[in-house]
Formats: sequence, structure tokens, C-alpha cells
Amino acid sequence: MRTQVAIIGSGPSGLLLGQLLTNAGIDNVVIDRVSKDYILGRVRAGVLEEGMVGLLDSAGAGGRMHAEGLPHEGVLLAFDGQDHRIDLLGLTDKRVMVYGQTEVTHDLMDKREATGGVTIYDAGNVTPHGFAGDQPYVTYEMDGATHRIDCDFIAGCDGYHGISRKSVPESAIKTFEKVYPFGWLGILADVPPVSHELIYANHPRGFALCSMRSETRSRYYIQCALDERIEDWSDDRFYDELRRRLPSAHAEAMVTGPSFEKSIAPLRSFVAEPMRFGKLFLVGDAAHIVPPTGAKGLNLAASDVHYLFEGLQEFYGERSTAGIDAYSPRALKRVWKAERFSWSMTMMLHRFPDTEGFGQKIQEAELDYLVHSTAASTALAENYVGLPY
Amino acid sequence: MRTQVAIIGSGPSGLLLGQLLTNAGIDNVVIDRVSKDYILGRVRAGVLEEGMVGLLDSAGAGGRMHAEGLPHEGVLLAFDGQDHRIDLLGLTDKRVMVYGQTEVTHDLMDKREATGGVTIYDAGNVTPHGFAGDQPYVTYEMDGATHRIDCDFIAGCDGYHGISRKSVPESAIKTFEKVYPFGWLGILADVPPVSHELIYANHPRGFALCSMRSETRSRYYIQCALDERIEDWSDDRFYDELRRRLPSAHAEAMVTGPSFEKSIAPLRSFVAEPMRFGKLFLVGDAAHIVPPTGAKGLNLAASDVHYLFEGLQEFYGERSTAGIDAYSPRALKRVWKAERFSWSMTMMLHRFPDTEGFGQKIQEAELDYLVHSTAASTALAENYVGLPY
Repeated sequence: MRTQVAIIGSGPSGLLLGQLLTNAGIDNVVIDRVSKDYILGRVRAGVLEEGMVGLLDSAGAGGRMHAEGLPHEGVLLAFDGQDHRIDLLGLTDKRVMVYGQTEVTHDLMDKREATGGVTIYDAGNVTPHGFAGDQPYVTYEMDGATHRIDCDFIAGCDGYHGISRKSVPESAIKTFEKVYPFGWLGILADVPPVSHELIYANHPRGFALCSMRSETRSRYYIQCALDERIEDWSDDRFYDELRRRLPSAHAEAMVTGPSFEKSIAPLRSFVAEPMRFGKLFLVGDAAHIVPPTGAKGLNLAASDVHYLFEGLQEFYGERSTAGIDAYSPRALKRVWKAERFSWSMTMMLHRFPDTEGFGQKIQEAELDYLVHSTAASTALAENYVGLPY
Repeated sequence: MRTQVAIIGSGPSGLLLGQLLTNAGIDNVVIDRVSKDYILGRVRAGVLEEGMVGLLDSAGAGGRMHAEGLPHEGVLLAFDGQDHRIDLLGLTDKRVMVYGQTEVTHDLMDKREATGGVTIYDAGNVTPHGFAGDQPYVTYEMDGATHRIDCDFIAGCDGYHGISRKSVPESAIKTFEKVYPFGWLGILADVPPVSHELIYANHPRGFALCSMRSETRSRYYIQCALDERIEDWSDDRFYDELRRRLPSAHAEAMVTGPSFEKSIAPLRSFVAEPMRFGKLFLVGDAAHIVPPTGAKGLNLAASDVHYLFEGLQEFYGERSTAGIDAYSPRALKRVWKAERFSWSMTMMLHRFPDTEGFGQKIQEAELDYLVHSTAASTALAENYVGLPY
């Protein structure tokens, strides 16, 4: 088989890139090692920046998002027993869209099917080859045979654990990492969200986040030790702990109900540089991870897609390599700003076992300053809604 | 001897408080363990916020400052080989005043003499007593005799190493501290400053600061290891290292000349809470230390003086204790904001041996974001010129 762009990974970044390419008349194939159902079963992020909303619209996959998604005009910071609202719309003239990543993926899959895009699921041993030279190709196994897709470019949209980054010689790649000394214990439950807007809570017992997927589905998190065991956390225990970390009005108003998903995730910052290796481009989590505190992971994958799509469009439209040559530095410039924001939100909102009293007082001063300074609130807001591409 | 307010320490905070009290008709005595010449020989800070400028004017000691001080409307952040100006005036409508602490002290001493204020220098074994009860007093030794000053209140303006804080039972005081893993090697030289405005430089070799005392006197600093020895740093070596850390235009333009002061200072954040113990009030460095990166030490002492003076004036004028009762929480609220700013400037501008690659990339992203975001530049500027009292 031959295509112009082989895309490894059929999560939202691979599908979004594929759709933008398809719409622009650039042939592409998406290959994934797992099944469509597996992908749709993953629980992920749910806050979209306007830039990403615009990309989904460009892809022609934004219809259901606009109908069912919840545009949010603010977020709440809760500390010292009180809410402090950051007026995103008032400070930046932008909103964010609450719409689950699973839904985004679903919509992009539907669109891909409707426009005849090829996706190969359940592909075994997917491997990129020859990207250092002029004839890159991807191989995979299916039905006992090895198949080969020749292409001009390979887009590695297959996440942190994917084969794309691992195919690059270690000596060609520089990585930066920070591991945080705690995790997030999260649940999904079909109960109405405790608040119309997201609540980020800094509390002596630890961070808590009240997020949502819809007006009837809540996504709640509490900071926990990395060695906590899921089985020690009944729903009742979880809700009790969550309520303790919220201002009392929220704690009292909270509707509880059985969780249908419960998991503990570690928090980590990670960046691999560069993001291009010859004909191979890394996109999204394949190149970088942010802690979820700033809701930036999916949005950062989208901005990578934006830069890569522009470069590829320029290449096929104008036979210019300027855009693809600029991909890695352009993407990384925005990646690092989002890494900085995610790191700073994480540092400001969590309890750290190692900073003792001084670190905690600095957090309190930072929050106090932040919510009383228009400049500082605006800086937070402009990062939260997303810096321009 | 009897007075209304006994002030321990004749640095700028003690003298400023004394002068404001004198002007308001409140009797006070300043006592210091060292001599006038010793105090005037100390080299200290030199950037005054408008709030402090206003206090010096209120004290009637601002004349020479306005004539000889240098109002600055911006500061430069230098990194990646380039200057980036923060337009303090444009962003905040405020300036800072470059005028040495030694000059401030000199002017306040002159004013005190002219208005008949009593200052006792070279007082031995100065000790506050009875401040937990209703009859506080201060004792000191001179000419072989012990003297006693009875008073209503004691203001501890005697710095970190002073007797005031040390007189408080340890159990009554809570301290917060952070020690940074480096120091500043600084020189004073009678050469024209390399730049009209201060330069804060982040460089792979470490932080550098080009400050000044006047148009003919420069104050230069470089980040150094804590175990550096002064005697290993000739002026030539110092200037060579400083130039390496600056954008080339500055390095080439720098005029060098013999230093007449050279010292290494450690960087530390420290806060003692509360700032009031019965009839004893801690003011300035006696209660808190900031790393010098944000130029906040002297200005924070001034805001303490402002709150304490207001409280004392209210007490003597209206017999209300509301102001003095509020002194500690009001002062601490602003102290912690300045601690946060000084900490964040220190974290953003220095090389840290322990944060490796990730920390450095975060610094670069922060500086890049900061100088390109009006909101973030404004947040820095409003802290630099001084948050409102």
C-alpha cells in the first residue's frame, strides 16, 4: 500500500491530523495496534481550548461538540474555605469547551468513516522504518502476514508508550522530566456536577478537582499518595475525602452516586526534543506529557497537529519544506509554555511533602495575590484558555 | 528616662518610624548598640518603591532623594543574548527610585537631629523587658552604668540578628525559612553604570545584576557558589565573569574600575510570625528576610513602619487599639506577598544545581512567556514597583 502520510495512532491527535489532511486532499492512512472499542473505552481529558474547537470545526467534526458540549466562561479556585472565580471570558474574551476526549474521538471516527478515510485497527507490531532517509514506510502484521505502507511522511501520534518515539535512536533525542511526589485518585459518576464551573481546590489535606463531562456526569479527583490502593477507596470514602477539601457550600450541595470508573494516575512532566527526525514527526503525548492540572494534554496535541498540518499542506501545496522544517521548534515553543503553566498550576495547588511550612505559605500568598490582582488573574486565564498558536 | 515609644535599632526603619512619630507629636527614643559611623558604613539596598518615597516625604526627609535619586521607569531582563525591557511606568503608572539605603539613613539622621529627636548610639547590652505586661522598658549599659527607658511600646527595628526577636520566647514564635544553594558576589565601584536601567540577567553561567547607586557609582553582582572566597576574585576576574553573563552590547560597553567594596552574601527567605508580642512590635529584618532579587528588603521594612505608625497614631490620637491590634496580620499579609515575589524572581533568574534540565527549560519558558505577555509583564511590574499598602 502507498499513501502520502502514514499516521501511527488513532487517538484524537492522529484522527484530527488525518481528517485535516483528508479535507485538504492529502492521502493518509491511520494505523493502530488496538481496536476501535478499546480506544473509545479510554477515559481521558475533557476541557478544550478555543484553538482546538476551531480545529475540530475545520475538520468538519465539531457539530455534536457545539450541540452537547458545555462552554465555560470561568473556573473557580477554592482555598481557605472560599471560592474565588477566575472570569476567563471577561479577562481574555475566550471560553473553554467542556466535552470529553472520548466524544471528540468518537466524532472524528464518524467523520473519518463518512469521508472514506482508511483506518487499520488491531494492527500487530506496527513499526516505522527508513524515516532517516527518503523512503519511509510502516510495517504491521495482520492475519499472519506482514504488510507494508510506503509513504512520504510518518506522523507518530501513538502516545508516550508508543513505538514512534522508541524507534528513534536514543542518542538523537534529549528528554526532560519531572515526577511529582503524588497522584490523582479519580472517579467518573453519573451525578450532576457539584458546580456549574470547574473547582480547583487547594486544601491542607491536598488538592481536589471537581470537573465534569456533561450536566449529568461528574469527574472528581483528589490528590493522593502514590502508594494508595484503589481497593482501599470505596465510593463513600472518596466522596467524604473530596467534601472535606471543598468549601462547605459545595460539600453540602454535592450529590453522590456510584462511580463507574475509578483509577489512580501519577503526575509527570516530560518533553522529548526534537519532535522531528527526518520524515518522522512526533505529535502529542508521543513527545510530551503534562500533569493534568492545567487541562493541557489534549490541547497541546491539537496545537502540534495544527503546526504539522500547516507544514504538510505547505509541502504538498507549494512544494516548500519551510513549514515542516519549522515544525519542531514551533511546536516546542508552545509545548514548553504549556509545560510551564501545567507545572506552575501543579506547584500552586498541591500539598508537597518536601517543602514544609515555607512552601505552603508561599502557595497561600500566591493564591491570595492571584485572585486579587487583575494582571495575575489574566495571566492565569490566558494560559488556561490557551495561548495563541 | 521615660518615652512613649522606645525604638531599638537606628537603621532606616527605626529612624523612619521615629521621624513619623516625632512629626506626629509622639515622643520616642532610638537606641542602637553600634555607632552612627558604623551604621552609615554599611552597604545595603538602593531601589525604593513609591510607597517608601511617600513615607520619606511624610517624614520630611525626602528632599535630597528627590534632588539626587534616579527615578527609573523600567528594568531590563536579559537572557538568551538579548535585553527585554519591562516598562514599569507604562504597565503600572509607577516608577521606582534608585537611591542608596545609606543615603536614606543619612537623610533620616539629619532630619532627626534637626527636629531634636533623641538617639542613643553605642549602647551596650540593649534589652527589651516586660513587653508581655503593661510596663515595658528597655535597658542598656553606658559609661559603666545600666540605664532604663520606660515606655508604652517597644519597636524592634534591629534586624535579623537583633535582640528584639531573640527576646521573645521561642514557643511564642513560628518561623519559616528557605535557604538558596548559592550566594551573590557583589562589588561597588565608582564607574558609570553599564545601563541607564537595572539589568537582571539569566545566563547558563548564573545570574547577574547590574545595579547602581548613582550615575557615577555602580553596584554589580554575580551569582556564586556559597564556598567561593572573596580573595579568589580580583576585580578583573569579577568583571570578566560579569561580562560573560550579559548580552554582548552591554559587555562591550562596560566601563570597569577598581571596586571599593566586595562581599559575598548568602540568599535566604525567612519569616517570623507573629510580628507583635504584647507591647513589642517587630519591624523589617527583625521579622523577615527576603533574597535581594526583588529589591524588597528595605521596602518591606517601610511598609511595616507604615502599618505600625498608623496603629500608634490611632492609639495616641483616638485611644483605639484597633490599629496596633491589626499590625501583625496587616503587615504579614504584605510580607508574604513580597516573600512570594522575591522567591519567584530568585527561582526564575538563578541557576539551580538541583533542578537539572527540566528546571532550566521551565525558566526559559517562563522568561519567554513573561516578556511576551502583557498580563505577565504587568504582574511582575506591579510587584516590582510595590503592591499597595
